[in-house]
Amino acid sequence: MHVVIMAGGSGTRFWPVSRELRPKQFLNIVGDKPMVVATYERIKSLVTDDRILLVVGERHRKETERFFANSAVRLLAEPKGRNTAPCIGLAAKYIDHLGGREPIIVLPADHYIANAEVFRNALLQAARLAAEGGIVTLGIVPTRPEKGYGYIKRHAQPEKDNVYRVLKFVEKPDLETARDYLLSGDYYWNAGIFVATPQTLLDEFYNQMPHFADGLDQLKLSFDRPEFQAKLESLYDSIEGISFDYAIMEKTSRPVYVVPCDCGWSDVGSWFSLYEVRMGNKKDGLGNVTEGNTLLIDCKDSFLVSRGKRLLTALGLKNILVVDTDDAIMVADLERSQEVKKIIDILKESGSIELL
Amino acid sequence: MHVVIMAGGSGTRFWPVSRELRPKQFLNIVGDKPMVVATYERIKSLVTDDRILLVVGERHRKETERFFANSAVRLLAEPKGRNTAPCIGLAAKYIDHLGGREPIIVLPADHYIANAEVFRNALLQAARLAAEGGIVTLGIVPTRPEKGYGYIKRHAQPEKDNVYRVLKFVEKPDLETARDYLLSGDYYWNAGIFVATPQTLLDEFYNQMPHFADGLDQLKLSFDRPEFQAKLESLYDSIEGISFDYAIMEKTSRPVYVVPCDCGWSDVGSWFSLYEVRMGNKKDGLGNVTEGNTLLIDCKDSFLVSRGKRLLTALGLKNILVVDTDDAIMVADLERSQEVKKIIDILKESGSIELL
Repeated sequence: MHVVIMAGGSGTRFWPVSRELRPKQFLNIVGDKPMVVATYERIKSLVTDDRILLVVGERHRKETERFFANSAVRLLAEPKGRNTAPCIGLAAKYIDHLGGREPIIVLPADHYIANAEVFRNALLQAARLAAEGGIVTLGIVPTRPEKGYGYIKRHAQPEKDNVYRVLKFVEKPDLETARDYLLSGDYYWNAGIFVATPQTLLDEFYNQMPHFADGLDQLKLSFDRPEFQAKLESLYDSIEGISFDYAIMEKTSRPVYVVPCDCGWSDVGSWFSLYEVRMGNKKDGLGNVTEGNTLLIDCKDSFLVSRGKRLLTALGLKNILVVDTDDAIMVADLERSQEVKKIIDILKESGSIELL
Repeated sequence: MHVVIMAGGSGTRFWPVSRELRPKQFLNIVGDKPMVVATYERIKSLVTDDRILLVVGERHRKETERFFANSAVRLLAEPKGRNTAPCIGLAAKYIDHLGGREPIIVLPADHYIANAEVFRNALLQAARLAAEGGIVTLGIVPTRPEKGYGYIKRHAQPEKDNVYRVLKFVEKPDLETARDYLLSGDYYWNAGIFVATPQTLLDEFYNQMPHFADGLDQLKLSFDRPEFQAKLESLYDSIEGISFDYAIMEKTSRPVYVVPCDCGWSDVGSWFSLYEVRMGNKKDGLGNVTEGNTLLIDCKDSFLVSRGKRLLTALGLKNILVVDTDDAIMVADLERSQEVKKIIDILKESGSIELL
């Protein structure tokens, strides 16, 4: 078995804490460790370190090497972001080059998982299944009618014990549809977690992205050689960004399976989502989550993050997010925190690059 | 005529901008000048500088001397705050000692006045009246049913042209009562502005605060002498704090008059009150007031003050106050901003003296 941890995303959703040079996966935004380290620690009991491959952006290579200085994990650096399909294709090719034949578990580096043991057991089941040649995805058992996630629809009858064939992948629904999904029991959240052997993956890339697959063939000669990074850059320049869901999963003619998994998962995709993760089951109190040096008076359902050196005081707030850093503060309606991108856009337009 | 500017207040209401060492009257919180300087400039055309007496707290003496370095205004420093009655008694005694016989206009240093000319004309009228031996107060014509101010009830019939006898002083009313006051036309806001001759004032202190008046008699020998400050401290140690309203105005048997004044006055007693002053007549827009480096998206009726070096961004806020300084931030329900005292209390209890 192999594990690929995809840590190439850029980081605007947790501004002002996350920045271009400090995206979410490198921040200790949920616990006390960077998310990529937490992701590694969550699965490191499954395989030896040399079977774990991190794929990061070139500009985060140094930082990643520091985080994993005492580990034998492998590292590939993408010259630019091209979404998940090229990342997974590159990883599969590299593992194939190393002689790997066993299933690869592909994990995003920036998700939260409350129950790691349930998660690992689902991965092991998926890997056993993937060894037979199919593509297996984890299906997160939904706990609320969430509009913000993509869904996986399963066949009504299980294929075998607690495994289902996938009927289709569906985009983010509206609220009413999400309610129907939740009630039907046939839908799971798509967490972007896949398991398949290198050969399965590479076959799919030959079928669905032949130009890219040819490029990987040529690149193979350069793996672990000085010219590798330049060759990879040239290949990445010749392709467009596309997700693995869209490029492969929705088009493959192979059997695709889903293993249901009820592990307390969140993609932690916004400050509000992080607030929910941090709240956990503590919903009975006043509903406030705080970090750093804070002083609250009569606040409710608010999220107060002080990452600077200042005291953050709050009085009579309800549903408010405050994030303080050394050079910028954001105060927002907590439920509109995903609109932080609008702030980023204005900063870009105004040339405030030091804040990006 | 003489003017006494009372600048002895402590500054908790505009925390975190105001601090013990930087109370409101020394801050440029409304315009671009410290309020005590704006107060001086508002009335300096009425009298020569040597007839203007500033009364400040001892710890603000140096700062005040700097502000008024190019002026011949006089300065007395109180060793501690004892509310307005001792301050006015001391000022009257000092002006009497200097040979002053003309009416003294007593002004708080930290009020906002939109129309200075209307204000000065009312003061001149009050001074003419006070020369005849009464005590005259300015009555601010109310513009809304305000619960936060004390009121002055006049006699229904004017004493003479636009001057009324005062029937009584009334405490802060509830909202319904404030509405009745506004409708009746017989009530004014009490701005704490008084005019009377030194002799009238000193006679009143003999009658109402005889122990303090005796102390002032003894102190008189020390005015402008090295031992003055120590003697004053000893006198202040022997008395309790009490307001001029309570000690004199509500008890005097002299005629008390009110001169109505519609000058766009505010005591600027809270962040919300400052917000209203800053909004002025701009209520037609989105209702936001900003200061410093700010970026607003879809905010309404909010007050955003960046006095630190950071960018303050706000998203989807309504009725929210944000004040950022170098060492503390306050985020509050704008209409509850007067509760900032609760924060101060907690900081005191926790020994965070560097933030007070």
